[in-house]
Amino acid sequence: MAGNTIGNVFRLTTFGESHGAAIGGVIDGCPAGVVISTELIQDFLNRRKPGQSVTTSPRQESDLIEIISGVFEDKTTGAPIAFLIKNKDQRPEDYEHLKNAFRPSHADFSWDIKYGTRDYRGGGRSSARETAIRVAAGAIAMHVLKPAGMEITAWVSVIGNVSISKSLTDISQSDIYSNEVRCPDSNAAMQMIEYLKELKESGDTTGGIINCNIKNVPAGLGEPVFDKLQADLAKAMLSINAVKGFEYGSGFSGAAMKGSEHNDIPEGIYTNEAGNTFLKTKTNYSGGIQGGITNGQDIYFRVAFKPVSTLMKDQQTIDNTGQQITLKSRGRHDVCVVPRAVPIVEAMTALVLCDHYLRAKLSRV
Amino acid sequence: MAGNTIGNVFRLTTFGESHGAAIGGVIDGCPAGVVISTELIQDFLNRRKPGQSVTTSPRQESDLIEIISGVFEDKTTGAPIAFLIKNKDQRPEDYEHLKNAFRPSHADFSWDIKYGTRDYRGGGRSSARETAIRVAAGAIAMHVLKPAGMEITAWVSVIGNVSISKSLTDISQSDIYSNEVRCPDSNAAMQMIEYLKELKESGDTTGGIINCNIKNVPAGLGEPVFDKLQADLAKAMLSINAVKGFEYGSGFSGAAMKGSEHNDIPEGIYTNEAGNTFLKTKTNYSGGIQGGITNGQDIYFRVAFKPVSTLMKDQQTIDNTGQQITLKSRGRHDVCVVPRAVPIVEAMTALVLCDHYLRAKLSRV
Amino acid sequence: MAGNTIGNVFRLTTFGESHGAAIGGVIDGCPAGVVISTELIQDFLNRRKPGQSVTTSPRQESDLIEIISGVFEDKTTGAPIAFLIKNKDQRPEDYEHLKNAFRPSHADFSWDIKYGTRDYRGGGRSSARETAIRVAAGAIAMHVLKPAGMEITAWVSVIGNVSISKSLTDISQSDIYSNEVRCPDSNAAMQMIEYLKELKESGDTTGGIINCNIKNVPAGLGEPVFDKLQADLAKAMLSINAVKGFEYGSGFSGAAMKGSEHNDIPEGIYTNEAGNTFLKTKTNYSGGIQGGITNGQDIYFRVAFKPVSTLMKDQQTIDNTGQQITLKSRGRHDVCVVPRAVPIVEAMTALVLCDHYLRAKLSRV
Amino acid sequence: MAGNTIGNVFRLTTFGESHGAAIGGVIDGCPAGVVISTELIQDFLNRRKPGQSVTTSPRQESDLIEIISGVFEDKTTGAPIAFLIKNKDQRPEDYEHLKNAFRPSHADFSWDIKYGTRDYRGGGRSSARETAIRVAAGAIAMHVLKPAGMEITAWVSVIGNVSISKSLTDISQSDIYSNEVRCPDSNAAMQMIEYLKELKESGDTTGGIINCNIKNVPAGLGEPVFDKLQADLAKAMLSINAVKGFEYGSGFSGAAMKGSEHNDIPEGIYTNEAGNTFLKTKTNYSGGIQGGITNGQDIYFRVAFKPVSTLMKDQQTIDNTGQQITLKSRGRHDVCVVPRAVPIVEAMTALVLCDHYLRAKLSRV
Repeated sequence: MAGNTIGNVFRLTTFGESHGAAIGGVIDGCPAGVVISTELIQDFLNRRKPGQSVTTSPRQESDLIEIISGVFEDKTTGAPIAFLIKNKDQRPEDYEHLKNAFRPSHADFSWDIKYGTRDYRGGGRSSARETAIRVAAGAIAMHVLKPAGMEITAWVSVIGNVSISKSLTDISQSDIYSNEVRCPDSNAAMQMIEYLKELKESGDTTGGIINCNIKNVPAGLGEPVFDKLQADLAKAMLSINAVKGFEYGSGFSGAAMKGSEHNDIPEGIYTNEAGNTFLKTKTNYSGGIQGGITNGQDIYFRVAFKPVSTLMKDQQTIDNTGQQITLKSRGRHDVCVVPRAVPIVEAMTALVLCDHYLRAKLSRV
Repeated sequence: MAGNTIGNVFRLTTFGESHGAAIGGVIDGCPAGVVISTELIQDFLNRRKPGQSVTTSPRQESDLIEIISGVFEDKTTGAPIAFLIKNKDQRPEDYEHLKNAFRPSHADFSWDIKYGTRDYRGGGRSSARETAIRVAAGAIAMHVLKPAGMEITAWVSVIGNVSISKSLTDISQSDIYSNEVRCPDSNAAMQMIEYLKELKESGDTTGGIINCNIKNVPAGLGEPVFDKLQADLAKAMLSINAVKGFEYGSGFSGAAMKGSEHNDIPEGIYTNEAGNTFLKTKTNYSGGIQGGITNGQDIYFRVAFKPVSTLMKDQQTIDNTGQQITLKSRGRHDVCVVPRAVPIVEAMTALVLCDHYLRAKLSRV
Repeated sequence: MAGNTIGNVFRLTTFGESHGAAIGGVIDGCPAGVVISTELIQDFLNRRKPGQSVTTSPRQESDLIEIISGVFEDKTTGAPIAFLIKNKDQRPEDYEHLKNAFRPSHADFSWDIKYGTRDYRGGGRSSARETAIRVAAGAIAMHVLKPAGMEITAWVSVIGNVSISKSLTDISQSDIYSNEVRCPDSNAAMQMIEYLKELKESGDTTGGIINCNIKNVPAGLGEPVFDKLQADLAKAMLSINAVKGFEYGSGFSGAAMKGSEHNDIPEGIYTNEAGNTFLKTKTNYSGGIQGGITNGQDIYFRVAFKPVSTLMKDQQTIDNTGQQITLKSRGRHDVCVVPRAVPIVEAMTALVLCDHYLRAKLSRV
Repeated sequence: MAGNTIGNVFRLTTFGESHGAAIGGVIDGCPAGVVISTELIQDFLNRRKPGQSVTTSPRQESDLIEIISGVFEDKTTGAPIAFLIKNKDQRPEDYEHLKNAFRPSHADFSWDIKYGTRDYRGGGRSSARETAIRVAAGAIAMHVLKPAGMEITAWVSVIGNVSISKSLTDISQSDIYSNEVRCPDSNAAMQMIEYLKELKESGDTTGGIINCNIKNVPAGLGEPVFDKLQADLAKAMLSINAVKGFEYGSGFSGAAMKGSEHNDIPEGIYTNEAGNTFLKTKTNYSGGIQGGITNGQDIYFRVAFKPVSTLMKDQQTIDNTGQQITLKSRGRHDVCVVPRAVPIVEAMTALVLCDHYLRAKLSRV
């Protein structure tokens, strides 16, 4: 009811506040027998780490994952996998001045009216710090998905007014991680970095768009009515802080197309390198999903992020009595969260796919 | 697990196939004491009815709702509300030729591989006919929401390459229903109708975009982490057949904005006409939701629909053995589903809001 | 939330009131490809039918099941299976006098205070008539369980002060159904019938105990913590109207035993006739479940039912204003529901086992 | 699916193994604004502590609770409440000899066949150590229930062949905690202690029965069909390790009664000291629940526990290859867990009541 859990079979519950003792998660429903590498989880988690560039906050979150349960001798046991990331480098005194402020485009007012109380330290539970747990959990989900051969790749395609020009076909993880904005087009990446530097100087921020592509998806994932695969992906993406939109396959541009252009003509039934049967189609405007269920073609989608709300310059706002106040710039904040959100998008994708991968085991006798 | 249920407190389960005896739904979790008007539900359901214009299918679905349980002397009792719409005007023989075909951009292949079997008559369970039940259920949800004063209004803003030019501020239900394309801008509506006629003649189809606006939303709806209000709205929208994208507030265009432009500066705390406290902000790029929770400003979002996949002209495709076949045009089909989807978008919105409206009762002691 | 659904993977939602248009159910999560015989379901449903003897109510419920969806060409499709039993032989006027009465040991007061309203006709939703849907759903679950070889057998072991003396080992369905009290011990059965006749003459009622035994249970069903198999069986049984107690294996008498007596000494690991590996133990005080998970030995349990609350003689009670009233005997009622509850116990058992049978597919990679 | 969560609105998920780093829990759905005393939780947790007497294991579990999240300035915030109890005094080497053994009446075989792997150290996840988390969570639930005035009292009524003779009416917490067997009848308590000493000498164990009574229950708690209050209580009790039976109200003895004896005649509608309306009845064989919903009378029930399976003497058994082995007595174990289970029964009761107390807020508009 309170919405801190996602998934039906592979269920992640997260907990913890930005400036409490720790943040953490519990995965219930991970099958027994999955080989787990804590190193791989930590490596993946490090991708989200702030302080990696001039464009992100210098806060040194060490974000070390501790697995508490559910893994024995490097294999899952079928018991719940609990894990913690202790909070370090906390400076609750940095937030004392925000106690009664309603910051522009933050969750302060809405939390206050919902709960009648609020942990104001660094946004408390509303902080994007919670997404570190999603990343760790997504890394565990990837371990489950591995034998099926699925490959999830996300990258930054837009920051502010700079867009990627490169086409989908030749994008690799090394291209993406070759620069600090996680953009596989090196020209665009350079422009993005320039733009972010400018914004930083002016104390401003911006948003962007992340693309994600999934290869080798087994056909048959997704449930046909409310839990269509695209519906669960959309929910997972819109549950990420700052996300404002989601589109898959032809997306918004599909609205202007004719059926005769948009229809993906089937060419044959084949088996992919991971041994999965798939429907080969001439085009893939369907984005690999038909009737809510995968057909084995690549899934691809885009996720829009709004600009960071915390600015490094003064802003007018009100306090919880409705009085006008000036919010002084303070603290350590990102100019743009989009590069750091790349592993978050991948992790949420992995969580959704893992859940549906397991659910699909139940579709027939 | 099988995904035929949506909602946590106010839960709708749908069932039924396009050419079975009936389609139906069960709402569990509707509070006792809600005054129900079957007439209002039927009126709302009629808005989705096909055969209302040259642009939609002439199939005469009568779509009469029968409430089976949960309502006694015109009030809900707290027991599950089950309702049926009997299928009439069935012509299963129209579909015999599709038994083994994998139609382009349909769910035929993906269902076959998931279930190993398929009710091929009119798409069976994958047919958009299932959405009639969502509309009826949404109408019941609206009865629950009524005392809170919420007003949900959806309309067609784009069909194919024709877009609305009218601004948000002056849109009424009567404007929307003054034409068969459910577009409140009469100039755009005329062009849309022209475009649809052209497509019809050529046997082609198109997609479009629906906008939705919600007024008088109580602040405090939505859960802060995975069940953010926008996340549940996105899921609900992407669960509608043919939907390819969702954006709310500033949406995809927000990605290009600066934080200093995008931030909604709070001006004060006020009480709206329905007696709800809200945060008044200078702009509303947040789309009425901050940190996943409503702040009392209007919610607004857009939903993209792809073109109808069934064309009124022959298409190449394959059958379930992988052989090339020609799919002959046959049957009765819509050129564009978007106008008929307006009440579906409203209904899904009502279901999500109703669920969160009830969940919000649990947020504090 | 409102509790009209049971099961996690194989989910049954029931709806309908005793004197509404129909009662019904929706099963979501039944795998595709299960061969369904409507005749077998109807046969099983007939076992619950009232009016089969002098000891039960003469109301002629025909209880004909109509399957609405989810079955195509006699096989499940993976879509939700909805089914209805229309209510016939309704006499709502029989209940007008109960509109404001709080009958002794009925749900009248508790419903009134919970919902502020109540469908008083024949108990409305609180009527045991709802259990007909459980029986039909249980029959569907049995179709799913069939390939695993599981055999569920329930019988009446106690009615009032008459108890069975026969031991477990030689009980067959034909013995059980050879008499109207569903008791495989023919001597005890005769005494039970005599006792029920006496009670009938005096306008009184009584309770009893049902035993249930399950053979050929695959090892590995049940989840180890909250959803232990015995926990879900207990819940399922206590959810049946009039049930007051549940015990499995050694049950209440196990409390007095010593560990050295109670421990089931393992003798070896074998394969049963259905091809399932099981742990053979010298004794089976564990009732086939250890740590919440089946070990392949027989499961057995007992369920206690209280006497029917509706008497065929006048009773003192109060109305909804707190005034003393005399409740006149009227209508058509059972002297003892226990014989009719035998298929209900079997059905609820099948629902729980089917859910866990499917869940067990998820326990390892 | 994997069953480590209980509750619908007030949801507890537990995690952790007996000899891992820690055990813990997450409560999601606790309303904001509940005043929390960590001291009270710790006090309640201490009641379950072993090593309190000669009859229980001398292992010194310190069981210190650490609240990680969801509580800010001593009040719940509406965010998930995570808490940990670190494992100390671990001696995994004590369990090396059990690695391949299937201990009599333990979960070894059933876990192995379910998961294909097992954390054998001290029973891993199947250890009763998990119940410490239930006790802590139950203590939090009690904080939520407090304003409603509910009082939950459990005590030992039977150990082995010794039964309490005292009647219900005059039982206080101080009577219960005046002796180490948690039995309010001091004569019975002395005999129980004597019996346990005897068993200890002979290396044997025994079971027992716990009674529980709940006063000042608001009327209207419980859902009428599958989630009847007694059904959820039964499930909660049967989910406790070693529990074999549950009965409430008249229980198993109600089966032998006549309806005219068993019916609870209503006498009037009153308001209790906590301000709740209730139905006063002459007798209370219904155990405070009618039609699955509380009527405001006391709830009472009994829970049967089997003897402890781990004996302090050698036992014959088999290993995982099916070979006969002798299990040597070793380690530190309880003669009887029933006294320590008293707070577990109270905690599980509190969890169920808290969930239904919150769910009841949704029953009407």
